[in-house]
Amino acid sequence: MTGTPLPFIDAAPPGAKLVAITGAAGEIGTSMAAHLASRYRLRLIYNRSVPEIVAGAVAESRATGLPVPIPGGHEVATADVSDLDQVTEAIRGTDAILHLAAVPSVRAPWEAVLSANLIGCYTAYEGAVRAGVPRVVFASSNHASGFYERDGLPTGPDLPVRPDGYYGVSKVFGEALGRYYAEGRGLAVICLRIGSFQPRPRDKRQLSTWLSHRDMAQLAWRSIETPVTFGIFYGISGNTRRYWDITSACEVLGYVPEDDGETFAAEFDPASA
Amino acid sequence: MTGTPLPFIDAAPPGAKLVAITGAAGEIGTSMAAHLASRYRLRLIYNRSVPEIVAGAVAESRATGLPVPIPGGHEVATADVSDLDQVTEAIRGTDAILHLAAVPSVRAPWEAVLSANLIGCYTAYEGAVRAGVPRVVFASSNHASGFYERDGLPTGPDLPVRPDGYYGVSKVFGEALGRYYAEGRGLAVICLRIGSFQPRPRDKRQLSTWLSHRDMAQLAWRSIETPVTFGIFYGISGNTRRYWDITSACEVLGYVPEDDGETFAAEFDPASA
Repeated sequence: MTGTPLPFIDAAPPGAKLVAITGAAGEIGTSMAAHLASRYRLRLIYNRSVPEIVAGAVAESRATGLPVPIPGGHEVATADVSDLDQVTEAIRGTDAILHLAAVPSVRAPWEAVLSANLIGCYTAYEGAVRAGVPRVVFASSNHASGFYERDGLPTGPDLPVRPDGYYGVSKVFGEALGRYYAEGRGLAVICLRIGSFQPRPRDKRQLSTWLSHRDMAQLAWRSIETPVTFGIFYGISGNTRRYWDITSACEVLGYVPEDDGETFAAEFDPASA
Repeated sequence: MTGTPLPFIDAAPPGAKLVAITGAAGEIGTSMAAHLASRYRLRLIYNRSVPEIVAGAVAESRATGLPVPIPGGHEVATADVSDLDQVTEAIRGTDAILHLAAVPSVRAPWEAVLSANLIGCYTAYEGAVRAGVPRVVFASSNHASGFYERDGLPTGPDLPVRPDGYYGVSKVFGEALGRYYAEGRGLAVICLRIGSFQPRPRDKRQLSTWLSHRDMAQLAWRSIETPVTFGIFYGISGNTRRYWDITSACEVLGYVPEDDGETFAAEFDPASA
């Protein structure tokens, strides 16, 4: 297939790594596709929700069970994230997986979390091992430690976990399972405890917890490029008011955040102006 | 039902708390029934494996869906630990749950761990909340941190987890889920990272990792009686050669181990004699 690049993503540079993105239709997935397309060849993995612009290619992939090229050097594929065989085939041949597919709601019920987040995390790691994909970047969450924030306490990635719901528990599980796969199965796993992923802070809290789209993209590519084989890092912008420790993200991954929620302080905290 | 106490357990004292033991047919469950019967009324919960001596009572419970008294003031009940409704009914009316039911093998495959250990842990906590049971003592495992031992490193309960298999990951999950239920749902949860539960050490390693039956029983009843509402503790005897930190078990739970693997040192480590 040839043609002009998709309007929503750039063309990949020649010889770029092929990176699979699960949950490509989600809020973070859509943004990461746009931000990472000029750095990597992307294989966007969809399930039920599919953007209209790639609907034809996705339907073809669903029918054949094979990835289908789209303009710009990228590909689409399909998989139900709770199905190990589907995931294994969808990621086969890629150099890394950005694993975003999950129920995203902090208040999601147990059954939904069990299927999409717990089983869906096993399939990503186990599928990677079976398909020979060497690295997974796992979208963990600040809700793995949510009760520190509720108690007004700062947190770092090495403190005991304090999840604030099934969603948060599923992220702790994904981190622990990832560490087993890293230490016991030869897979590299980087876990990013994503903060408030938004175009800009929406309230006073997010002056502290904001993760800008471009800073998330930087964390994603640094997690793909690092030689480190396991780590848990908070993923937020360089917010002046942050209470989650990003020191290790900066020192270990080389993360240099470009944004700071403080830019928007006057809007949500007039007293600080 | 009246009669003499079962040969394998003592009669409960009058007015004792009623404590449910899941996995009552297992190695730890069988021993805990014997050790705790003189302190508590016990409700022994079985599934597929049932001791001959209570087979009739268990069959009656399975038929009626209700607990059935056995001699000594104790009871039996039945539940598939992966079935929330069954677990909820089986534990209803008890004062605490000693949750031992799980696939016990460190090398258990994913599917078995998913059903018995992950879902089976959710059913214990959620069932407790639904049935109004205020406290769960969760049988975690040293395999939540197994890679420290493989690397020759000491471990304490507050260090980042390093599970060495799906089994160990399931124990990390049970601890994290327990912490959420403790902090978010009003359930008290004590997690015991059980070492080498044996009548006596079987090899040189177990001089360090041994947990005697009576020390496990003490940890269990202290975890039931403590006012503490969440904690993770290593469960081993007072072994001179230990490399898992039991300071917090002693200080927080009041644990005073009675045994020390060193008693058997000459047998497994002649050089030390």
